[in-house]
Amino acid sequence: MGREMDAAGLKVMAEPLEQAVTAALRDAGASEASLFDATKAMMHASRHGVDSHGVRLTEHYCNMLRGGRLKRDPQLTVTRRGASSAIVDGDDGLGHHAAYRAMAEAVALAREAGIAGVGVRRSSHLGAAGAYALAAAEAGCIGFATTNTDSMVALFDGAARFHGTNPLAYAAPVPGSRPWLLDMATSSIPMNRVLLHRSLDAPLPQGVAADAQGAVTTDPHAAEMLLPLGGTDYGYKGAGLAGLATLLSAVLMDTTLDPDFIPMYGGSDISTPRNMGHFFFAIDPARFAGSDVFAANITRYLGALRSAPTREGGRVMAPGDREWDEADRRVVSGIPVDPDTVRFLRL
Amino acid sequence: MGREMDAAGLKVMAEPLEQAVTAALRDAGASEASLFDATKAMMHASRHGVDSHGVRLTEHYCNMLRGGRLKRDPQLTVTRRGASSAIVDGDDGLGHHAAYRAMAEAVALAREAGIAGVGVRRSSHLGAAGAYALAAAEAGCIGFATTNTDSMVALFDGAARFHGTNPLAYAAPVPGSRPWLLDMATSSIPMNRVLLHRSLDAPLPQGVAADAQGAVTTDPHAAEMLLPLGGTDYGYKGAGLAGLATLLSAVLMDTTLDPDFIPMYGGSDISTPRNMGHFFFAIDPARFAGSDVFAANITRYLGALRSAPTREGGRVMAPGDREWDEADRRVVSGIPVDPDTVRFLRL
Repeated sequence: MGREMDAAGLKVMAEPLEQAVTAALRDAGASEASLFDATKAMMHASRHGVDSHGVRLTEHYCNMLRGGRLKRDPQLTVTRRGASSAIVDGDDGLGHHAAYRAMAEAVALAREAGIAGVGVRRSSHLGAAGAYALAAAEAGCIGFATTNTDSMVALFDGAARFHGTNPLAYAAPVPGSRPWLLDMATSSIPMNRVLLHRSLDAPLPQGVAADAQGAVTTDPHAAEMLLPLGGTDYGYKGAGLAGLATLLSAVLMDTTLDPDFIPMYGGSDISTPRNMGHFFFAIDPARFAGSDVFAANITRYLGALRSAPTREGGRVMAPGDREWDEADRRVVSGIPVDPDTVRFLRL
Repeated sequence: MGREMDAAGLKVMAEPLEQAVTAALRDAGASEASLFDATKAMMHASRHGVDSHGVRLTEHYCNMLRGGRLKRDPQLTVTRRGASSAIVDGDDGLGHHAAYRAMAEAVALAREAGIAGVGVRRSSHLGAAGAYALAAAEAGCIGFATTNTDSMVALFDGAARFHGTNPLAYAAPVPGSRPWLLDMATSSIPMNRVLLHRSLDAPLPQGVAADAQGAVTTDPHAAEMLLPLGGTDYGYKGAGLAGLATLLSAVLMDTTLDPDFIPMYGGSDISTPRNMGHFFFAIDPARFAGSDVFAANITRYLGALRSAPTREGGRVMAPGDREWDEADRRVVSGIPVDPDTVRFLRL
């Protein structure tokens, strides 16, 4: 491409990057419908600085499509369960495809009923949960998206991996502005932060990870599991929120519990579907305060929030502001792509 | 009562305590319907060890009933907004009355539709949000309850009180057992924990409070505001969750934003209603995995959780286990009631 790749990789503009991701998924046999959604979700993450859930996952998904864990041409089925509820069967395809479909269904039902919840079963990794909450907000609704994931986080006072980093993502529409968007893991940090600190040989922050005996550690080489949000004193809150994700995604949907997943990475089995579950809801403000009143209220609320006094050197932001800022920067400077992914996508 | 009161107050059995609370609210003019719900919610908190939201609030509520902030005989109205949505107008009565009604409505709608959301406006302090999530679980549904509250928590990097300690409460039914129950403030600690440390002249934990300039402090005398869950590094998550409570309770319901409340305590105005909002939802598992499958799944999930390896000296618990244990102890030993409340209730 005429650009020099350094150790950090390459910065690539969104359009050619998206084309390369699409081409790779197509090459691995994914149907147009499912690769469209997977690309959209990965590009959401890559545009907004959530690189762990961005285009670097393309190679993994391609491997799973080739290995048979993921069905190349999944046929989604949507079963209505009531005026505000439905179940999407993901047919073991790319999770993004089932997830966008589920949120579209939730939005459509919410417009009629007020709030609607749609669960997904027989799905797979969906990338950044925020992508789907955002889709609801772009359609004028408050959106919620969650999933359970591979065990990686100790329980409060636990000494083994139990819950995943189970995200909770919420978004709300803001007139004339980008949505309010909270996409948070229920651990303090993601596991790839530990890996980064290992490669840098730099200590971890306090209270975010534990060794194999469950003892809190800042040594990234000793870190064997993450701790839930709230750390050593208040981690029962983060553990409870992780449990909420599991309750809605797995217990309510009758899919795989966090400790029971075939490993996403590194296992020998890449042909057996993982039966992952997700849960989404959408709320239509038109059925509560009314769309106009909601719009005026959220504008006033965010105005008050963004103009709140800050501590020295700080900046008060609404959820999502950091990500929107990063997206603006990446429009100009391009999206950083790690060397392995540069090679895989032939950028 | 023939018992000696020490500095900590008195331990009182649930039944006479409940009668005393009922009598006090009746004496202040509260209608039977509204005082029934307020007593039920306060007793929930007092039974389960959440004393800040328990019977000690009786005097406050009585003062507000006498001052005119709270209407003595509120007439609730429920307006259906769709197959899964409704708004309850609390008519400026005791918030517990509107809140139990809203959750009952959410459960009834969820049984038909799958999930239902009910908002409340023109309400007041509802006590412990967990009481209403629990009511949903006792009716066989997953329940959610939230409210915004008086400004007390800084934003992440903020230097002023902005959000309240805005609770998120979730509960889920467990067959043959007490529900899974997560009732958490979105700050690490409540403000009365600061007051307790002041009276003990004992330092606060790290990263839970800030002084008037927003600088983190462990000095309870300097602490002017709380910090959101996640503390100095990850407090954007707690702040985002507090914002969720405000979005659903105030922005969506067109009620008072956290910084705009007439003070709950200490202000001179005890005659103007505060127009507090809340939001509840219920999910009927019968519309998703099915009740029997959900019951089997949650039993298996909690079994795995409670038998997970613990770190030395620790004990792994499910959300609510600590509270149920405390409730069992209090059945035997009685409920501790502080001296002011003992006097007010003439115990």
